[in-house]
Amino acid sequence: MIPRYSRPEMTAIWEPQTRFQIWFEIEAHAADALAEIGTIPKDAAKKVWEKAKGVTFNVERIDEIERETKHDVIAFLTHLAEIVGPEARFVHQGMTSSDVLDTCLNVQLTRAADLLIADLDRVLAALKTRAFEHKLTPVIGRSHGIHAEPVTFGLKLAYAYAEFTRARARLVAARAEVATCAISGAVGTFAQIDPRVEAHVAKAMGLTVEPISTQVIPRDRHAMFFATLGVVAASMERLAIEIRHMQRTEVLEAEEFFSQGQKGSSAMPHKRNPVLTENLTGLSRMVRAYVTPALENVALWHERDISHSSAERMMGPDATVTLDFALNRLAGVIEKLLVYPENMQKNLDRLGGLVHSQRLLLALTQKGASREDAYKLVQRNAMPVWRGEGDFQSLLKKDEDVKKYLSDKEIEEQFDLAYHFKHVDTIFNRVFGAA
Amino acid sequence: MIPRYSRPEMTAIWEPQTRFQIWFEIEAHAADALAEIGTIPKDAAKKVWEKAKGVTFNVERIDEIERETKHDVIAFLTHLAEIVGPEARFVHQGMTSSDVLDTCLNVQLTRAADLLIADLDRVLAALKTRAFEHKLTPVIGRSHGIHAEPVTFGLKLAYAYAEFTRARARLVAARAEVATCAISGAVGTFAQIDPRVEAHVAKAMGLTVEPISTQVIPRDRHAMFFATLGVVAASMERLAIEIRHMQRTEVLEAEEFFSQGQKGSSAMPHKRNPVLTENLTGLSRMVRAYVTPALENVALWHERDISHSSAERMMGPDATVTLDFALNRLAGVIEKLLVYPENMQKNLDRLGGLVHSQRLLLALTQKGASREDAYKLVQRNAMPVWRGEGDFQSLLKKDEDVKKYLSDKEIEEQFDLAYHFKHVDTIFNRVFGAA
Amino acid sequence: MIPRYSRPEMTAIWEPQTRFQIWFEIEAHAADALAEIGTIPKDAAKKVWEKAKGVTFNVERIDEIERETKHDVIAFLTHLAEIVGPEARFVHQGMTSSDVLDTCLNVQLTRAADLLIADLDRVLAALKTRAFEHKLTPVIGRSHGIHAEPVTFGLKLAYAYAEFTRARARLVAARAEVATCAISGAVGTFAQIDPRVEAHVAKAMGLTVEPISTQVIPRDRHAMFFATLGVVAASMERLAIEIRHMQRTEVLEAEEFFSQGQKGSSAMPHKRNPVLTENLTGLSRMVRAYVTPALENVALWHERDISHSSAERMMGPDATVTLDFALNRLAGVIEKLLVYPENMQKNLDRLGGLVHSQRLLLALTQKGASREDAYKLVQRNAMPVWRGEGDFQSLLKKDEDVKKYLSDKEIEEQFDLAYHFKHVDTIFNRVFGAA
Amino acid sequence: MIPRYSRPEMTAIWEPQTRFQIWFEIEAHAADALAEIGTIPKDAAKKVWEKAKGVTFNVERIDEIERETKHDVIAFLTHLAEIVGPEARFVHQGMTSSDVLDTCLNVQLTRAADLLIADLDRVLAALKTRAFEHKLTPVIGRSHGIHAEPVTFGLKLAYAYAEFTRARARLVAARAEVATCAISGAVGTFAQIDPRVEAHVAKAMGLTVEPISTQVIPRDRHAMFFATLGVVAASMERLAIEIRHMQRTEVLEAEEFFSQGQKGSSAMPHKRNPVLTENLTGLSRMVRAYVTPALENVALWHERDISHSSAERMMGPDATVTLDFALNRLAGVIEKLLVYPENMQKNLDRLGGLVHSQRLLLALTQKGASREDAYKLVQRNAMPVWRGEGDFQSLLKKDEDVKKYLSDKEIEEQFDLAYHFKHVDTIFNRVFGAA
Repeated sequence: MIPRYSRPEMTAIWEPQTRFQIWFEIEAHAADALAEIGTIPKDAAKKVWEKAKGVTFNVERIDEIERETKHDVIAFLTHLAEIVGPEARFVHQGMTSSDVLDTCLNVQLTRAADLLIADLDRVLAALKTRAFEHKLTPVIGRSHGIHAEPVTFGLKLAYAYAEFTRARARLVAARAEVATCAISGAVGTFAQIDPRVEAHVAKAMGLTVEPISTQVIPRDRHAMFFATLGVVAASMERLAIEIRHMQRTEVLEAEEFFSQGQKGSSAMPHKRNPVLTENLTGLSRMVRAYVTPALENVALWHERDISHSSAERMMGPDATVTLDFALNRLAGVIEKLLVYPENMQKNLDRLGGLVHSQRLLLALTQKGASREDAYKLVQRNAMPVWRGEGDFQSLLKKDEDVKKYLSDKEIEEQFDLAYHFKHVDTIFNRVFGAA
Repeated sequence: MIPRYSRPEMTAIWEPQTRFQIWFEIEAHAADALAEIGTIPKDAAKKVWEKAKGVTFNVERIDEIERETKHDVIAFLTHLAEIVGPEARFVHQGMTSSDVLDTCLNVQLTRAADLLIADLDRVLAALKTRAFEHKLTPVIGRSHGIHAEPVTFGLKLAYAYAEFTRARARLVAARAEVATCAISGAVGTFAQIDPRVEAHVAKAMGLTVEPISTQVIPRDRHAMFFATLGVVAASMERLAIEIRHMQRTEVLEAEEFFSQGQKGSSAMPHKRNPVLTENLTGLSRMVRAYVTPALENVALWHERDISHSSAERMMGPDATVTLDFALNRLAGVIEKLLVYPENMQKNLDRLGGLVHSQRLLLALTQKGASREDAYKLVQRNAMPVWRGEGDFQSLLKKDEDVKKYLSDKEIEEQFDLAYHFKHVDTIFNRVFGAA
Repeated sequence: MIPRYSRPEMTAIWEPQTRFQIWFEIEAHAADALAEIGTIPKDAAKKVWEKAKGVTFNVERIDEIERETKHDVIAFLTHLAEIVGPEARFVHQGMTSSDVLDTCLNVQLTRAADLLIADLDRVLAALKTRAFEHKLTPVIGRSHGIHAEPVTFGLKLAYAYAEFTRARARLVAARAEVATCAISGAVGTFAQIDPRVEAHVAKAMGLTVEPISTQVIPRDRHAMFFATLGVVAASMERLAIEIRHMQRTEVLEAEEFFSQGQKGSSAMPHKRNPVLTENLTGLSRMVRAYVTPALENVALWHERDISHSSAERMMGPDATVTLDFALNRLAGVIEKLLVYPENMQKNLDRLGGLVHSQRLLLALTQKGASREDAYKLVQRNAMPVWRGEGDFQSLLKKDEDVKKYLSDKEIEEQFDLAYHFKHVDTIFNRVFGAA
Repeated sequence: MIPRYSRPEMTAIWEPQTRFQIWFEIEAHAADALAEIGTIPKDAAKKVWEKAKGVTFNVERIDEIERETKHDVIAFLTHLAEIVGPEARFVHQGMTSSDVLDTCLNVQLTRAADLLIADLDRVLAALKTRAFEHKLTPVIGRSHGIHAEPVTFGLKLAYAYAEFTRARARLVAARAEVATCAISGAVGTFAQIDPRVEAHVAKAMGLTVEPISTQVIPRDRHAMFFATLGVVAASMERLAIEIRHMQRTEVLEAEEFFSQGQKGSSAMPHKRNPVLTENLTGLSRMVRAYVTPALENVALWHERDISHSSAERMMGPDATVTLDFALNRLAGVIEKLLVYPENMQKNLDRLGGLVHSQRLLLALTQKGASREDAYKLVQRNAMPVWRGEGDFQSLLKKDEDVKKYLSDKEIEEQFDLAYHFKHVDTIFNRVFGAA
């Protein structure tokens, strides 16, 4: 997480002040429940809210205390006592730091997930708009980087739309994975704290109760969360690379928006580079990188160890801030993408009709040629075209063996572009729903 | 995937013969649909089934053809034609190899997922049985490897049960991710094949229709699948490491079953090592390793490239066979685990009551001590115990400042073990459901 | 590791028979040293060699014994005793299984490294031949996929040559990392075995002595080994992707050799796909994937645990066999690569001289324009060319502000291709050494 | 990289001001060389140094310019022109941004490597001091977490010393990998810049010349660099985990220093947790995580793309700052580690002599028992000891079959601790050199 690749909405979630506010809410709600049950005086719980609600905590002061105690939650509680006064001794009764830390982390992760889901909604909206705009804009489909058969640019975007719809569903599931609260005390037995406190805090913080915790909330939940972020980042990379390919000089079917005053290269003034999508490719690598430590964080020792903590302090913000920034950048790229239908058509025409080879193959088999023979007939007329030795349609018309099966007119019919788009509506209905 | 760490049920899914059988089924079902629609003669579709259903394909022959054509699906189709005869030319009409390959891979992955889910059921059953057996067997809970407060061995297993319940739910979701079928032809436009063929094959093979494919089924699905396997493996590692810790010489609270004739060490005849759970730790590393290439496989170029294929040929079997073997080994370890309640009790008593320090802390605060003061009072009586300088309870009873708040009797009451287990039923109900 | 992506030279290293042969050699050499020192009778050592040297061990029998003892080295020693007779009791004296297993693994890894180094030599030879062949074949250099300035195809190959020279040096270093022998007995103290045995075996097996082992040879060595393989695989991927880019339909500057009878697509007979380099891209992902478990294998518990073993049994063969296969495939691709200089020239001319924009920029600054002004002047004449609105040279000649600094002749001079190749010799000398 | 886990020495390397200072030096040295060659006026080069040397650049101003130009190097050069005046137009002549950026990154990485090497020297010094201090302090060696045979605590530290000596050598090699300079202009052909400029800048910046660059310095170098950091982090994790194990309540053979005022747990005042080494375990996971994106950064497209840049902006600082902090923390842990020889002895005695089982095995075979028989004899007397059913030595003395081979006195001789330490000097000499 570095300022260059951060949005304030997401970094705010990870600032110390936010963390302390969440800690306060957890402690104050827990105090309410403790008071309701009768463990602590009702006045004490009330006083906590009165004195500290809305207060901006003094981060420097908390840091100062932590330097002595070497324990962040104790430092916070000590500072809270400075604000609340003697009633503060009723705070955190029967709780352990993990109750606060883990529940707070999950609040932060669910808030982060909410932003990421909103990011995806922006990406999805952009994709949908542009997909319908180019629903029938022909462009060559490529497999292996080689011209295959025609598709439309709208189909390319519909494909991405379907993938990001899955990404969104996965993020919703990942959010649910980590939307749990544990207030179960040392080693999670509720020995010192009534389970009703947990239920109360969970509800107040918008979480569900963790069925069984061992002081820590189990890290398989977080592994699943970060793994899901990695998969979303991988989908983002796919789309970014598609655009990079389309902007290649020889292809130039689409291009990132290039603003006035922008410089593509310090040395070569003619350059217009796909720097945003290259940037997204690199950011995807980082978001994916955090999956590995998240998986390694699962196997804590016995009821808990704290090895996950240092890793999470880094990758919690790093993964969410980076992905949030990247998804917004991606949405902007799609929204403003320059699309060049003429270039698409020019590229489509490039192979002199070779892209219709399959239709010829099928026409021949339907007329009685064996698949093997048909394949050979088509291939022997296709290869000279690659070498620049003639036009596919003319070659076929001159091939005596082909003529045994197909008339000139039948050959011509196989070169019709519209033939390929007859099911675009069907696919759009599948992806975007019926009109 | 190596024989040493494989079970035949899972390796069978990945054998060439199985793959060819699935290819055959896909092609034959597609032929049915093509015939129904009227694209090919009904007799042709019928003939395909008649001639090839139940046939054991000649893998060597297919390999031989592939050496010439350098294309596996064409090799298979050529061999199929040798079996079916001239009607074979109607097979694969309008389809592309990816239609067969990707749908087949998804059939294999869903079958693999079914086995893995069954494996988890065995693990869950073992955990449940042993959890109830030791529901109230006291054992010290440890945080940071240091004695914290008492838990029960049943709680440890209940914790694992809850984690593997989540693992199961994730596997079910992962199975759904890859249970799709695509028969959409070159670049996925259905130009050469009617979408009804896809719908028919999907249903016949127990899959759902892929809403939009681009010749390939999108690899974000598979990334999610392998990422989920990685998370399951991480949970397995957590439980394996718990057992390794419990078997340590100084702890020896539980032990892997050690059979007659088994040798722990070639050099040291006294050894009984937790080799099975160490083995599981290593196997978990491998299953987790495949997450990275699965994430890298997502960003294929344009409508498809084939870079994913070589990686999947390796990690498809490697990840599923290894996890299947490991989960079965884990189930066996749990089922036969030797548990030593006396050692658990001995360890629990080791710190001379120090593990009750929190109860003292709370008792002091409830009697009016500030949290800070109470902490210092308890800590100053705890530290000499670590140094072997006395017994915690006796030290407390002699501390003049403690005596201001607590009588001897009140101090004694804080050392009651049963106090810690009063919510075990609550937790078991949460995890296993009401009795 | 699967047969499809394996060469027999490398798989042979990992076969059970090879492993048992190496075990035998270690044990027999150790027996020699033990006899020399006087720990065991000289006749016993001699008998071991006489009876078992050159013998093909019975792998099934060893497996059978292991099923009872659950210990592979003991199983082997038992079988060895069946061959050698009573003198076998002097074998393995004071040794522990790890002495045999770890030294054997390192023998296997050094043999694997030797093959990989030979593979790189083949790749290097191919690159050098083709680099000199195309030393002055012009091709556009691309940054961001966008035309930048001219280079030569020979430079592209020289670049790869330099990278694989580094790869080779790294492999030599990685080989040295794992070329160690440990015969230090239980927990590595030499309590039961004289250090001279280790020195003797090390020398006999072509290894150096591990300065301090703890029963196991430290796994940071192996982590470094597999990490190096990962870096080599990454370099391989870079070259593979370069070729995939060059074979794209719109670029088509080079192409993988396409043999008679080969089929690019089962559906589209016109296709010629870069399937070998796509395959290498996927294989690179796998080889890189093993870096993570290798890093996780380092932190064994105390003097040793056996968690690394299961991971290594898989990734030892998987990583080396896959990389060996891939490097050979890569060498073949380079050796037979079809190169199309005409297409290179055609692409180079595509932007109508825009690729000379930097030369114009420098010419303007040398005539007194500020860098900022020069940049703007060039850029404003370049952008219309992208939009197809004219030719770069003509536009410049018409620009009044450009004319203040440069005459028509001076403008024309900036469009000279040879200008870019004046240092090709310098670079070739750096990479390949002076002629 | 977060403040909590950062040292100012390392973060300083990555601050914008440092980066701009390095950029300035590269540009100014290049200007010197350009002037020497005669490309630009000597006065201009002189003026650049005079006006800008020692100047603190205005980071906000540069950021402001970058917001317009969207190009960081151009923004810097524009700001430099504001400081230097009209002569600034001679700066950067024939260079491209990558010349500056990549050479700067390598300067930063070599400086980072220097700090990391110094960190390792501190770790090594601490290990050596403590190793000699405890050269003959007996402690049980453990394999699989199970008591094996005695070692000394000095040996454990000597082992780590040897491993970190290797780590140091690897870092020195990794530093050399990235200590290169490229000033080769667009696409690396030196078309616009004389190779002598590169040679001059390389020497002035303490680097070597990159033999062939393609505008970018090849990223296999950086992959190797970050992979090496990952291996060093793995070694650090190994030592951290060793200490965590030794501090476990049941073991307590060593303990992290616990300062006055420190709190182990907010809830349990008796706790003293190995929080520093747990922290190091987590930090190791992060440093290792960056290996994957570093490997993915190698395969840039054609002569360069900029996907590596965003990843490196994050992981450059993240990996080096985190490892630097962690190694210093590790050194502190070792320097102040509390060691408990009495507990080591107590644990050593725990198995009632079982740890001498191998000596018995060897004694029996030397008296003529077959290895198989000897193993069974020892094992059958060892197993009851595990079950608490007697003392190993007494059981052996009562075993009729044992008595056939060994007298009581011979049995007793096998229980001598000193026997195990006879080669400690040999090993120390190997690791630390002769006294």
